Amino acid sequence: MTSRADVPAVKAALRSQAVETPSWAYGNSGTRFKVFAQPGVPRTPREKLDDAARVHEHTGAAPSVALHIPWDRVDDYAALAAYAAGLGLRLGAINSNVFQDDDYRLGSVCHPDARVRRKALDHLLECVDIMDATGSRDLKLWFSDGTNYPGQDDVRARQDRLAEALAAVYERLGEGQRMLLEYKFFEPAFYTTDVPDWGTAYAHCLKLGERAQVVVDTGHHAPGTNIEFIVALLLREGRLGGFDFNSRFYADDDLMVGAADPFQLFRIMYEVVRGGGLDGGVAFMLDQCHNVEPKIPAIIRSVMNVQEATAKALLVDREALSAAQEAGDVLAANAVLMDAYDTDVRPLLAELREEAGLDPDPVAAYHRSGWARKITDERVGGTQAGWGA
Amino acid sequence: MTSRADVPAVKAALRSQAVETPSWAYGNSGTRFKVFAQPGVPRTPREKLDDAARVHEHTGAAPSVALHIPWDRVDDYAALAAYAAGLGLRLGAINSNVFQDDDYRLGSVCHPDARVRRKALDHLLECVDIMDATGSRDLKLWFSDGTNYPGQDDVRARQDRLAEALAAVYERLGEGQRMLLEYKFFEPAFYTTDVPDWGTAYAHCLKLGERAQVVVDTGHHAPGTNIEFIVALLLREGRLGGFDFNSRFYADDDLMVGAADPFQLFRIMYEVVRGGGLDGGVAFMLDQCHNVEPKIPAIIRSVMNVQEATAKALLVDREALSAAQEAGDVLAANAVLMDAYDTDVRPLLAELREEAGLDPDPVAAYHRSGWARKITDERVGGTQAGWGA
Amino acid sequence: MTSRADVPAVKAALRSQAVETPSWAYGNSGTRFKVFAQPGVPRTPREKLDDAARVHEHTGAAPSVALHIPWDRVDDYAALAAYAAGLGLRLGAINSNVFQDDDYRLGSVCHPDARVRRKALDHLLECVDIMDATGSRDLKLWFSDGTNYPGQDDVRARQDRLAEALAAVYERLGEGQRMLLEYKFFEPAFYTTDVPDWGTAYAHCLKLGERAQVVVDTGHHAPGTNIEFIVALLLREGRLGGFDFNSRFYADDDLMVGAADPFQLFRIMYEVVRGGGLDGGVAFMLDQCHNVEPKIPAIIRSVMNVQEATAKALLVDREALSAAQEAGDVLAANAVLMDAYDTDVRPLLAELREEAGLDPDPVAAYHRSGWARKITDERVGGTQAGWGA
Amino acid sequence: MTSRADVPAVKAALRSQAVETPSWAYGNSGTRFKVFAQPGVPRTPREKLDDAARVHEHTGAAPSVALHIPWDRVDDYAALAAYAAGLGLRLGAINSNVFQDDDYRLGSVCHPDARVRRKALDHLLECVDIMDATGSRDLKLWFSDGTNYPGQDDVRARQDRLAEALAAVYERLGEGQRMLLEYKFFEPAFYTTDVPDWGTAYAHCLKLGERAQVVVDTGHHAPGTNIEFIVALLLREGRLGGFDFNSRFYADDDLMVGAADPFQLFRIMYEVVRGGGLDGGVAFMLDQCHNVEPKIPAIIRSVMNVQEATAKALLVDREALSAAQEAGDVLAANAVLMDAYDTDVRPLLAELREEAGLDPDPVAAYHRSGWARKITDERVGGTQAGWGA
Repeated sequence: MTSRADVPAVKAALRSQAVETPSWAYGNSGTRFKVFAQPGVPRTPREKLDDAARVHEHTGAAPSVALHIPWDRVDDYAALAAYAAGLGLRLGAINSNVFQDDDYRLGSVCHPDARVRRKALDHLLECVDIMDATGSRDLKLWFSDGTNYPGQDDVRARQDRLAEALAAVYERLGEGQRMLLEYKFFEPAFYTTDVPDWGTAYAHCLKLGERAQVVVDTGHHAPGTNIEFIVALLLREGRLGGFDFNSRFYADDDLMVGAADPFQLFRIMYEVVRGGGLDGGVAFMLDQCHNVEPKIPAIIRSVMNVQEATAKALLVDREALSAAQEAGDVLAANAVLMDAYDTDVRPLLAELREEAGLDPDPVAAYHRSGWARKITDERVGGTQAGWGA
Repeated sequence: MTSRADVPAVKAALRSQAVETPSWAYGNSGTRFKVFAQPGVPRTPREKLDDAARVHEHTGAAPSVALHIPWDRVDDYAALAAYAAGLGLRLGAINSNVFQDDDYRLGSVCHPDARVRRKALDHLLECVDIMDATGSRDLKLWFSDGTNYPGQDDVRARQDRLAEALAAVYERLGEGQRMLLEYKFFEPAFYTTDVPDWGTAYAHCLKLGERAQVVVDTGHHAPGTNIEFIVALLLREGRLGGFDFNSRFYADDDLMVGAADPFQLFRIMYEVVRGGGLDGGVAFMLDQCHNVEPKIPAIIRSVMNVQEATAKALLVDREALSAAQEAGDVLAANAVLMDAYDTDVRPLLAELREEAGLDPDPVAAYHRSGWARKITDERVGGTQAGWGA
Repeated sequence: MTSRADVPAVKAALRSQAVETPSWAYGNSGTRFKVFAQPGVPRTPREKLDDAARVHEHTGAAPSVALHIPWDRVDDYAALAAYAAGLGLRLGAINSNVFQDDDYRLGSVCHPDARVRRKALDHLLECVDIMDATGSRDLKLWFSDGTNYPGQDDVRARQDRLAEALAAVYERLGEGQRMLLEYKFFEPAFYTTDVPDWGTAYAHCLKLGERAQVVVDTGHHAPGTNIEFIVALLLREGRLGGFDFNSRFYADDDLMVGAADPFQLFRIMYEVVRGGGLDGGVAFMLDQCHNVEPKIPAIIRSVMNVQEATAKALLVDREALSAAQEAGDVLAANAVLMDAYDTDVRPLLAELREEAGLDPDPVAAYHRSGWARKITDERVGGTQAGWGA
Repeated sequence: MTSRADVPAVKAALRSQAVETPSWAYGNSGTRFKVFAQPGVPRTPREKLDDAARVHEHTGAAPSVALHIPWDRVDDYAALAAYAAGLGLRLGAINSNVFQDDDYRLGSVCHPDARVRRKALDHLLECVDIMDATGSRDLKLWFSDGTNYPGQDDVRARQDRLAEALAAVYERLGEGQRMLLEYKFFEPAFYTTDVPDWGTAYAHCLKLGERAQVVVDTGHHAPGTNIEFIVALLLREGRLGGFDFNSRFYADDDLMVGAADPFQLFRIMYEVVRGGGLDGGVAFMLDQCHNVEPKIPAIIRSVMNVQEATAKALLVDREALSAAQEAGDVLAANAVLMDAYDTDVRPLLAELREEAGLDPDPVAAYHRSGWARKITDERVGGTQAGWGA
């Protein structure tokens, strides 16, 4: 089995990996059928940060938090950033939201009406203002734009409108800021989606410039799509900006990353390692919904799942793999990969945590901490945070 | 092309076909991302019936309305039935709802906790009480029950619990009442669904008795599933209770029936015709969401789409088809079917409507009627009906 | 319904549309389970052309024939071209084949072994030599390259090898020659495919130059993929080289185009019309397998299906559509499109044929011609053409 | 992590598990595009058994071999059984083949022509004769029957014909013999398949009797289908006859079991364990194609993959799982399952092998044995076995 010789390097790589958690995952979420409320859910952006600080405290691997505007709208973003810093956190990617206003029924930046497009664009530009205040590097753009019926709108004209809006936003980016463009196969649009696949996102990014990058949400593909292939391609093109991690059995289920297909997550992380994606240019973000499970421990578990997949990816004996590949030895090459995957990396990660002064079992530590009881008791009254803003 | 010789029989069959519209389709709906409110949407069950009466007035083919409990809960169901009768309508299937209470986070009749199961069962039994009051024939059961994560619950124990609840409800059914059991591939559960396919629904119905029948929602299948095959099988087994019609490009998109794949709808209706399903035993119900389009004209259009598909199915030259099939002439057999499909049946249906004293163009007639303006003006204040009860 | 005012323009457009038939569709084909032999199947490239001439004779719309090398290898391609000309045909796209030699077990131009890559490249260059001899404009490249198991080969290295081979071939193209790069979701490779989607093909074409274009095989997508969206995008980018038409219910079923989802074919042709794709730059090719049905009438039917979809697409009232789209009237816009689709265009096409001196019913005319009996009687002995070269 | 306390019971269960290998997996296979020949492939049923004996020698877990008729047709089946016994093997399930004769172009037992149906039925009955001679318990029936085009044949009439044939075969079964009915989503038929899903197979088995059982081929489902749910259901109904194991990323890829989604294989084996399926009533068969990898080590690896998944399934702490499930603790229940899955069971299986006097690493032992070189040297001339009979 896998030699332990490379363990120090593996540990160093793991120590450097940061997983960004999304503010909205601490709030309520659900399906179109029902949002189940959970006790203790945060009511304000600061309470979300309080919860995120627990995740980072126990994992040591979740130092930044993505915001979603307007769900996390505050009067003073610099103050929010300072609050985060006080908790040992950074504010991460700013996520725009141009899908929850009645004006956006037929789209936002792709809407047939110029007034609506302008409104959407203004929101995107506002998000860059917020980035200036929070010091965020990444603007994450997801557009729910699309159509439900054949003929509803002109596919090509919508592309033109999209390109125009993206150019205006790109132009506005400051030094060191990036635009991450997300694609999604379907939902909430059910016939066309204006950015449905990596190819569309890539084509737009190419025209914008180097700081326009594609973000891969692992739940946003057609059935059977080989995601790690896309990851390898985007890294080869220098266009992989980051991940929105989650997992799914069917569509955009938004389950805990690694829960549905841990082998797929490993293969994805292998391509990240192979393509040099651990060097900081690729943002590892979670984007999940914890509809039936408690949120904080689910997020802790998700961070751990990313770490375990990364650890296994790092344990792949690259030299043996290359040798088998070059020899055309299919079974040997596959066996090298599987050897790493079959390894139980939990002891390694437990060791890593202990070396960093953390509890080897973050979930157990969280449960012992009493935080769940504390927030259930204290967060009474007010309006729980949720997707509905 | 298709001989017109059989037109009188085709018209007679079309005149006898009734499409049931769902009360909830007149209210607001949406995705988990946003419910877009529309002006003029009903605020009460009676206002829903008022709208349904417009659909029937213009199509002559939508005489009954399905209710959803608790969305359509009223104090006096007999009075509601009388109100419907006054509009020329009947109350149709009673649809239970055991998915929108916080208690149902982990399921309803399959929930691990007996208290929750009892609560869900009580609701189902209440629905039969309501059927007694409304004179409805059909109880439609859809369970959102399932799990999101491997291990979350015991698949087999959940089947046992499901069987127990179904038996209790079946036992309660009165003379002439039926139970229609719906299946769904996924959503809102994302790992297992307790009734995920026709086979599961069929197996339960078999054990219950003849009045337990399977209902086919055309949006509830895995990608690529041949729905008309299932229809043919269930008719052969005497277990096709009805349809929940809608259409989809991806998952349970709930678009207007016939909008995404009109050829599929035709093939389904062909199997209905072939299997004797136009004789009254199969309920033709719509179950759709009009998220971005106005509801009443969308429902009118949907009724028309069912009629057009049925008309084409009736026009298939069955004798020529059988001859080609028996001769093993693949292209000739396919051509017989396509000949009917390629026929423009809109003139035939226009004629049928005129013979019945209706406008040949129901959508245009609706637009001319001024109803849309009237409800926009009058339905001000109050809470618009929607999925959220 | 659709105004007939634009009929002359529609007819002119239809008269100018040419559908290229593939030589291999006249030979035997099948699945991995069985190739069913059919009587009268051609044994030589010339006999394939003889059959193709029948298709063109009866449809007037299939003037060119694609070749597949080595299946159509002859000593003298100029003589073959002359033979075709004598039949009123042209030789069309040259299709390379780098998947049927034992050397290609692990790939062709992406193979880990440089010797195999060289062999594959030599074949591609030979295909350009053949184009020079036949006067063909298009080189169609489909690579079955990929892997079956995770780890089997390095995804990125394979892209590098692919890029190198494509550049060498592109360099070799003569004046007026184009390279059409095909993508395919899966099969025969079952884990990764080296050109799995339009994005990958597009990215390579971009780097090569303007004469590298993407070809869309309508059976080569993930379930649920919106093909017309891709068509619209590629036309917007000036990168749609052509189609390989066929239809499918599941995977790459290679059924007659329009047989599985005629509405989809119409939507695709609408985007072609909308994007200016009828001007000659887009090649309309068939790529089908007639496993259980007789080949010549199946191909005639396929040509007719393309014509019918095109006719409907041309009948769309573009002005009314734009007006409804700009007004955000979802149902009206959809209705404009559906009005064209629901129109029975068979009379229009019959008229068009009669105006061109053809039988209005090409299939019936073929059956009356006696050709099927003739080839069954005469093509006795020898080896029937098939995929196996 | 998982307590070691239950290891003796786990080992006992593992020792009792037998995996049946298919004779045809030792021969050549491929896709419709190409069958790549491999050196040393068997030319006769006896040579296939010789190879199968190597698999059993190194794993100790593959004592029986399934036959495929006519691919394994011999004059004297009793002699073949004796030959197998001499190698320490048993002959297992008899697999019928009614798809490779030109007569079966439009189906076998569902064919519109009674003559072809009779021919197919005679073959099925012959297979029972062979079972009598070989002492096989199971007759495995897979029908490629279906249609490629809408209208091609009558769906319901085909079901009637199928039922008639199945009844005739069931009637012929001797004491202790079973009929295993396989279903498949699609391929080689591309529109309808006559037994496309478990529901259809189950409905037929119910009517036949208790010895008619459903067999689950893990590659025969629609995308996204939850296979372990079907396994749990069939076990609950007493109708799970066995598995045809393999794995897939897309369709019926027939890759090595456990190669595409090892977590799914674990979940399936967990439901088998949970449902009492390790007691002998469920046949664990492989049905794979080794198109690009050498066959014998691929089969050894596949047997090992089944063992590893079973070992993990057996390690699940059932008591802890039930407790978490009953408490509605989603994350704890999932964690119990994942704990077993994340465990590296390779040391346990190595130990088990050593206790049985086997090499702990079967693949390495096979490579050291020199068998591959021996068969490459000796099996020269003749015709290699393959799917083509």
